[in-house]
Amino acid sequence: MRAAIAASERVRGTTSPNPPVGAALLDAAGQLVGVGATRPPGGPHAEVVALAEAGERARGGTAVVTLEPCAHQGRTGPCALALIEAGVAEVVFATADPNPKAAGGAELLRAAGITVRQGLLAQDVERGPLRAWLHYARTGRPHVTWKYAASLDGRVAAADGTSRWISSADSRAQVHLLRRQVDAIVAGRGTVLADDPQLTARAEDGSPAERQPLRVVVGTGDLPPAARVLDDSAPTVHLRTNDPDEVLAELAARGVVDVLLEGGPRLAGGFLKSRRVDRALVYIAPKLLGAGPVALADAGVSTITQALHWSVEEVTMSGPDVRISAVPAEE
Amino acid sequence: MRAAIAASERVRGTTSPNPPVGAALLDAAGQLVGVGATRPPGGPHAEVVALAEAGERARGGTAVVTLEPCAHQGRTGPCALALIEAGVAEVVFATADPNPKAAGGAELLRAAGITVRQGLLAQDVERGPLRAWLHYARTGRPHVTWKYAASLDGRVAAADGTSRWISSADSRAQVHLLRRQVDAIVAGRGTVLADDPQLTARAEDGSPAERQPLRVVVGTGDLPPAARVLDDSAPTVHLRTNDPDEVLAELAARGVVDVLLEGGPRLAGGFLKSRRVDRALVYIAPKLLGAGPVALADAGVSTITQALHWSVEEVTMSGPDVRISAVPAEE
Ligand SMILES: NC(=O)c1ccc[n+]([C@@H]2O[C@H](COP(=O)([O-])OP(=O)(O)OC[C@H]3O[C@@H](n4cnc5c(N)ncnc54)[C@H](OP(=O)(O)O)[C@@H]3O)[C@@H](O)[C@H]2O)c1
Ligand SMILES: NC(=O)c1ccc[n+]([C@@H]2O[C@H](COP(=O)([O-])OP(=O)(O)OC[C@H]3O[C@@H](n4cnc5c(N)ncnc54)[C@H](OP(=O)(O)O)[C@@H]3O)[C@@H](O)[C@H]2O)c1
Repeated sequence: MRAAIAASERVRGTTSPNPPVGAALLDAAGQLVGVGATRPPGGPHAEVVALAEAGERARGGTAVVTLEPCAHQGRTGPCALALIEAGVAEVVFATADPNPKAAGGAELLRAAGITVRQGLLAQDVERGPLRAWLHYARTGRPHVTWKYAASLDGRVAAADGTSRWISSADSRAQVHLLRRQVDAIVAGRGTVLADDPQLTARAEDGSPAERQPLRVVVGTGDLPPAARVLDDSAPTVHLRTNDPDEVLAELAARGVVDVLLEGGPRLAGGFLKSRRVDRALVYIAPKLLGAGPVALADAGVSTITQALHWSVEEVTMSGPDVRISAVPAEE
Repeated sequence: MRAAIAASERVRGTTSPNPPVGAALLDAAGQLVGVGATRPPGGPHAEVVALAEAGERARGGTAVVTLEPCAHQGRTGPCALALIEAGVAEVVFATADPNPKAAGGAELLRAAGITVRQGLLAQDVERGPLRAWLHYARTGRPHVTWKYAASLDGRVAAADGTSRWISSADSRAQVHLLRRQVDAIVAGRGTVLADDPQLTARAEDGSPAERQPLRVVVGTGDLPPAARVLDDSAPTVHLRTNDPDEVLAELAARGVVDVLLEGGPRLAGGFLKSRRVDRALVYIAPKLLGAGPVALADAGVSTITQALHWSVEEVTMSGPDVRISAVPAEE
């Protein structure tokens, strides 16, 4: 399963609206004979890629897949059928397919006499590579990760508006990796006016990544024609609305499943007020500023009893910074 | 050493200006035969308490002490001499005594033919029970821990000023334990006017702890005579100054070694500007507010390059909250 997860991680950001699935094939003796991950839309699914590599050695072996093999005929044939035809003896998957159209793969496999086991490393997959897609499959809305970097005292910029490198080089590298893995980066018009960010995924030396997510600016007003977000380094859309649901519907229509909300404070407030943030990823740098803007404004809370309740999912160090991943407590 | 550390933890807050030392005595066979901790000023030191419990069984045994046994004649005799007279064969201590008056204990012991080892669990002791006293012994100033509780978005109160229970019951219990362990709690006049806090150490049911730290309010203006901080549940001083060094000098003169700075934002700003905060203890609750005051104001930083650089020492969970302990990066 670790090999399958690793394969799926490598294709994150290239498969939407399909899930970034990973598959590994073991022969009857337990040797790894094939690894595959979902190809871009229209291409083969993970199981089929792994089966192609394994060839005849798959017969009598085990397929390990991050997601329940699909049972429906889409642009590609059902994976469950491909596994049956290849003669595998056992299928192990991490998480079930919530999509009614595609589900039923496990049943199909069992009916063909294949041993089916479910749940292996399910949490790693559900919080990791399949998080956004599972959310999308359940709700029809893209998954929104709100990311920001703040000082220990909660500031996202200094008093004069400067914010370059609040967080460490490690954290910035993590964010650029994250940008490569999502389908779209969303920012408010205020952030574009204030910081003129490029919103692209770049390597440490500043060179652009091969694949760039869609850049999305949200706000009813105009953008300066010279804004860097309008340069030709990646596609950009400007959505003239303040309604998070309109934003998400428009993005879903474009095949976007995984969204990174990069601020600013008022746009984040709008998304939180509508309960449209699914995860917060907070980089806390051990710096103190004592003045400057805070990550979140106008979230509809005026007294302490109205506070939005979240829960901490994971705390890790990112170089010198503390990284907190949190999700709404309702989940 | 674990027994010695545990013993020292129990007397924190009762020994200043002496260090809360812990000692354990093992007989020649390695059996624990005595445990002691520093008694309140004028009383015996940890080694003497442990020796009294061990009696003759100390002969040929090992003394394990959190701090190098003292060599000077204060209100009590030198501990090094007491250990020599008791006939212990070996002395193990965690950290050396930086106090020139008291140091030399290790030498004295070695001269008497006793095996001396240093450094066992030194970091646990230096960051734990002896942190404040070691700082005080080195600098002459009380050690200042700045503690605050904030929401994930950095707010210490909601828009309307309400802040009750931003952090969890676990975190509040930790803070009351901490209050019991320090010599003084310091707050700004603004916090007293805004929140009317009592600043006492209390148990979960609200009942006051047996020992209460000194309550200190800092600010040039008057306090309302009915302020709860002026009630008779603990001693209180009002220091009419805005200068952190005057505050610390006045507290040192009163035998205070360990200070808990509980805010608010401007007082914390004053202490940070003067580089008089030695540790920050931040409770981050997974709540979102989107409005309200931030923990720190006016720290003398106006642009990002002037940010105060700290470093994260430890991150732990406190119930649902994330607790970050950080220290100035210069250290
Ligand atoms: N360190 C970090 O991680 C970080 C990240 C981003 C931003 N920042 C800082 O944030 C500051 C900018 O703050 P800001 O609040 O002006 O930025 P913002 O939230 O990016 O932009 C506000 C604008 O977004 C549009 N918007 C879209 N939906 C909205 C909604 N539901 N509610 C309210 N507005 C909505 C509005 O545009 P229209 O008026 O056109 O409708 C509004 O004027 C800058 O100082 C920047 O440095 C820091
Ligand atoms: N959640 C938490 O952990 C927490 C903790 C504490 C406070 N708070 C919040 O903080 C808010 C109060 O803010 P605040 O800034 O007014 O409180 P503050 O910092 O407690 O008080 C400011 C006052 O402290 C005095 N002071 C002493 N030394 C100073 C210095 N070097 N620089 C500036 N002032 C100094 C001044 O009094 P004089 O004018 O008399 O000279 C000043 O007016 C309240 O809303 C409270 O709820 C939250």
